[in-house]
Amino acid sequence: MKVVALAGGVGGAKLVDGLAKNLSAADLTVIVNTGDDFDHFGLRICPDLDTVCYTLAGIANPATGWGRADETWQAIEVIGKMGGPGWFRLGDKDLGLHLERTRLLETGKTLSEICRHFSTIWEIDHRVLPMSDERVATVVHSNEGDLPFQDYFVKRRCEPTVTGFYFEGADAAFPAPGVLETLKEADLIVICPSNPWVSIDPILAIPGIRNAVVEGDQRKRVIGISPIIQGSTIKGPAAKMFLELGIEPSAANVAEHYGSITGAGLLSDFIIDDSDAVEQASIDELGISTHITNTIMKTENDRINLAGEVIRFAEVLLGL
Amino acid sequence: MKVVALAGGVGGAKLVDGLAKNLSAADLTVIVNTGDDFDHFGLRICPDLDTVCYTLAGIANPATGWGRADETWQAIEVIGKMGGPGWFRLGDKDLGLHLERTRLLETGKTLSEICRHFSTIWEIDHRVLPMSDERVATVVHSNEGDLPFQDYFVKRRCEPTVTGFYFEGADAAFPAPGVLETLKEADLIVICPSNPWVSIDPILAIPGIRNAVVEGDQRKRVIGISPIIQGSTIKGPAAKMFLELGIEPSAANVAEHYGSITGAGLLSDFIIDDSDAVEQASIDELGISTHITNTIMKTENDRINLAGEVIRFAEVLLGL
Repeated sequence: MKVVALAGGVGGAKLVDGLAKNLSAADLTVIVNTGDDFDHFGLRICPDLDTVCYTLAGIANPATGWGRADETWQAIEVIGKMGGPGWFRLGDKDLGLHLERTRLLETGKTLSEICRHFSTIWEIDHRVLPMSDERVATVVHSNEGDLPFQDYFVKRRCEPTVTGFYFEGADAAFPAPGVLETLKEADLIVICPSNPWVSIDPILAIPGIRNAVVEGDQRKRVIGISPIIQGSTIKGPAAKMFLELGIEPSAANVAEHYGSITGAGLLSDFIIDDSDAVEQASIDELGISTHITNTIMKTENDRINLAGEVIRFAEVLLGL
Repeated sequence: MKVVALAGGVGGAKLVDGLAKNLSAADLTVIVNTGDDFDHFGLRICPDLDTVCYTLAGIANPATGWGRADETWQAIEVIGKMGGPGWFRLGDKDLGLHLERTRLLETGKTLSEICRHFSTIWEIDHRVLPMSDERVATVVHSNEGDLPFQDYFVKRRCEPTVTGFYFEGADAAFPAPGVLETLKEADLIVICPSNPWVSIDPILAIPGIRNAVVEGDQRKRVIGISPIIQGSTIKGPAAKMFLELGIEPSAANVAEHYGSITGAGLLSDFIIDDSDAVEQASIDELGISTHITNTIMKTENDRINLAGEVIRFAEVLLGL
């Protein structure tokens, strides 16, 4: 079974880690959101790509889920002392990566070439692809005006009230090399339990990717895992965003949201948490089959177990 | 007595530190070489300016003379691990400064504005000025072709044989704000025991500065301190450069070299080490008065004592 995972954020990286521990390198490709990417101090910073790669490389900070383990903060402390902007906490090790990535981009290498190069050094077996080598920038429409994503997310700590999102550059962006081919060959596309609005939607905002996810082989399954559990999230502002947009945060509404992106449905199947079993009926009404299990990933075993559930659910659906 | 010091490198920073401990803030200005400055990883790095400022701020690494005390090396280790260029050892704290300086330059601030801003935060009382806000780049002519200064100095560890130097941009560069006024008002200009070829010459390669040093008030003294002691240096490639250019490395030849820059002399007086007393006669022949003392600065007291000697020597010469 060929699997592609669409991921962004810490929740996405955790499930990707579980999938990687269940599947061979040949059978899993991860397509990562780059709508969060931004330039800071002249450096290209790719938070979601790095979170996925740090996690797969086994060097992620287990306490935060983002950034590196055994990180130090000397550079950002000096920046703060010198009166510079310290709101984006750049770790020293993390900085080394941003410096080298920016240098390589300046030499003309693409983000996906750089991602492959880093993956090789980190001995990441599974293929990790940025959604595009072109710039796509998530813009948050809010009661404070339009905010670049990191301004909203980190600088303003998600405090502004969200009124919508825009993915600058997405309409014209080509998927990164390998993305379309991999989606076409996939038996299973996993929509990770990432923030629908700012982690998954930017990926689907690229027309080529959206079409490849929706159209492809009729046999193919597109399985989402709800990031909303009991009306809330483990981490991040997804539930707050639903509320501010006038939508009740619920697993069913996540499924419905994904359907609305294409206008013709997106998920074939949806995995919701045990505690949300009551939502099964509403999801059925959307024409989406449901699987109920524990979706909370606290430990590495939780990641492996949930990924295993996703895979076995898909195998049954695919008749494998 | 108004004093201006021209400085670059570790030897220069040490004497500047001694001068700062002998003179009030109103009486000392330091003009620093920026010919070593370069862009690396997209960051503006100003080694001599930082060495002088770190030293005056009391945060320099006492073991190396350059870089910061209690430095860590996480970022550059990651860069090396990712296959990037690790030859220029960027410390994490040092990186913080380069990041903030580069960010401020991008906002349109000048190097001298940024230097003043940093000096304020570091509580450096004495005025430190870059020689120019414009780019001047020291190029080393060598048996391996033309090398950017840091390529020669750090990457190639001064191994290529030097055939000459070129200061790209110097002819057209304006001195930084305050430089000419300060030189004009100076009673004493101190040419620090820095490398003549690559620390002092770039400063004098700027026509406005060269003219201000040479022409000014007839009463003014221009006192050099020999970086060559017993045909050798405490640190750095100055003696090697003299040899490769076919000139015997000696205190007298340093004095003669400075004279040759203007064609009409430069130093009024020269301070040489006790161990080089025998050279006094040759220096006298150049029409330069000599003062002999211990010029080796191992301890902070050595710096203070040598600077004190320079000041007292000048006071006698000026009849103060």
